[in-house]
Amino acid sequence: MNSVVTVTGSVMEKTFRQWKKQSLNKLDHSKKGTVDEDIQHVVSLLNSREEYFTTSSCSGRIVLIDGAADRSDVQKQDCVWLFVSHHKCQPEDVISGVSRSDGDAVLKFEPFVLHVQCRRLEDAQLMHFVAINSGFRNSGLTVGKTGKIITAVRSTHGLEVPLSHEGKLLVEHEYIHFLTQIANQKMEENLRRIDRFYQNLQSALSAEKLQKLQIPDPPASQELQDSPHSLETEKGESEEKEKKKKTSVYKRRRKREQHRQTDCCHGDGSSSVSEPDQSLDLFT
Amino acid sequence: MNSVVTVTGSVMEKTFRQWKKQSLNKLDHSKKGTVDEDIQHVVSLLNSREEYFTTSSCSGRIVLIDGAADRSDVQKQDCVWLFVSHHKCQPEDVISGVSRSDGDAVLKFEPFVLHVQCRRLEDAQLMHFVAINSGFRNSGLTVGKTGKIITAVRSTHGLEVPLSHEGKLLVEHEYIHFLTQIANQKMEENLRRIDRFYQNLQSALSAEKLQKLQIPDPPASQELQDSPHSLETEKGESEEKEKKKKTSVYKRRRKREQHRQTDCCHGDGSSSVSEPDQSLDLFT
Repeated sequence: MNSVVTVTGSVMEKTFRQWKKQSLNKLDHSKKGTVDEDIQHVVSLLNSREEYFTTSSCSGRIVLIDGAADRSDVQKQDCVWLFVSHHKCQPEDVISGVSRSDGDAVLKFEPFVLHVQCRRLEDAQLMHFVAINSGFRNSGLTVGKTGKIITAVRSTHGLEVPLSHEGKLLVEHEYIHFLTQIANQKMEENLRRIDRFYQNLQSALSAEKLQKLQIPDPPASQELQDSPHSLETEKGESEEKEKKKKTSVYKRRRKREQHRQTDCCHGDGSSSVSEPDQSLDLFT
Repeated sequence: MNSVVTVTGSVMEKTFRQWKKQSLNKLDHSKKGTVDEDIQHVVSLLNSREEYFTTSSCSGRIVLIDGAADRSDVQKQDCVWLFVSHHKCQPEDVISGVSRSDGDAVLKFEPFVLHVQCRRLEDAQLMHFVAINSGFRNSGLTVGKTGKIITAVRSTHGLEVPLSHEGKLLVEHEYIHFLTQIANQKMEENLRRIDRFYQNLQSALSAEKLQKLQIPDPPASQELQDSPHSLETEKGESEEKEKKKKTSVYKRRRKREQHRQTDCCHGDGSSSVSEPDQSLDLFT
């Protein structure tokens, strides 16, 4: 059994490096074709690490989309982008955009989203931990059959406001002014969270690096790193690491408590019943 | 190393059973205190299976929340629930609710959310697969240090509309009528997705059960099931299982293509750039 695990482990390592090479070499297929400027430092940091690479990202945006007036599901693909901004916007941008609507226009704020492919499950766990503790409560892992492990960093922060129906404006210009202000506030908060995520990521990665330099893993224990229980079975290996992690967990927990309060009205209330506690519980 | 994996595996099995027992015995700490009626069948199905139990759930709801007029982060916890409905609602409910606002009222549609604790990583993968293929694109796993594995089933479907500022209504009653209609349509679509999730879950679980009855796992291979690569290393064990899975994957892929079209305007656009493809890619 041991050999199977070892062979699989090294094959997976190689496959991950190939995936990363292919991914970084290929063209950016997004509409924009480049990484958004507000998250270039995040993407660079991740791609500079051997255990990660990013597969898609958006720094956050305010969009105005014109959907088909007929709201049946079949028709919804016929939508037009009236306005997109990755920065704060002006009420005039929205008013001008909605004046071109001939269907059902909806103004949305879509927060930062990032998909990070991770070499091993424990790398994905670290990424998820950093994301949750930076306020990205809808983050989660995907573990594929072929060994692809991706952490999606997602926020609960949103705004989705219908503005027109069959091309007819449903609200006053004054309301659009107010709405733009709210969207811009969300954009600001979004940037603060990205910054928090970057800071937490830097700390977590340097702690990991330091720990690796100090205590090189014996080959035998590496075989176990692919197991979800690896952190448990390695408990004895480095009490220092455990101590360090615990300290930062407590620090983050305190920060987290603050976020929970601020999220009370504008987070994803339905999942707030137990998700934040579960997440903390899971990671500690 | 083998013995470590085996012991850890059986310890984890026992721990999972204990967690499940504790969880099912404890009081429901949600505001409502009971499982929402529209998802009782889903929750019952999951809790009847030895590999799963639910830790929190919400069938979906329309809520009107009054936030503090002062929008600074520190103040946001002072919010009041003006109206909550787990079913379709009437414009009058919203109008009456917003008339009681003395802060910043926001109308939200919050879709179905479910947290399922899973015995093993592969059980979580199956749950995630079913969720993604039923249209719940923001679903993801949490893998904790202590072996807790939770799949969160989450939708991108949302609506978040500011209605008042400092107690002053910002929109016409006619707009609230339109908005209620949109929220109710989202509630209907939400119920269709829950139904799809339930059907897909039933199929996936009976396929798994059948497969387990036909091909009992030899003890040696069970030790590997805790590894993220278990599905890979077990490839040779059951070609029939692989074939079955592939067939259902293709069926689901066809269904999925339809969902992607309908999600074009109202899904989480920011992640739609590559997430659906990634998800499919990951699972096939």
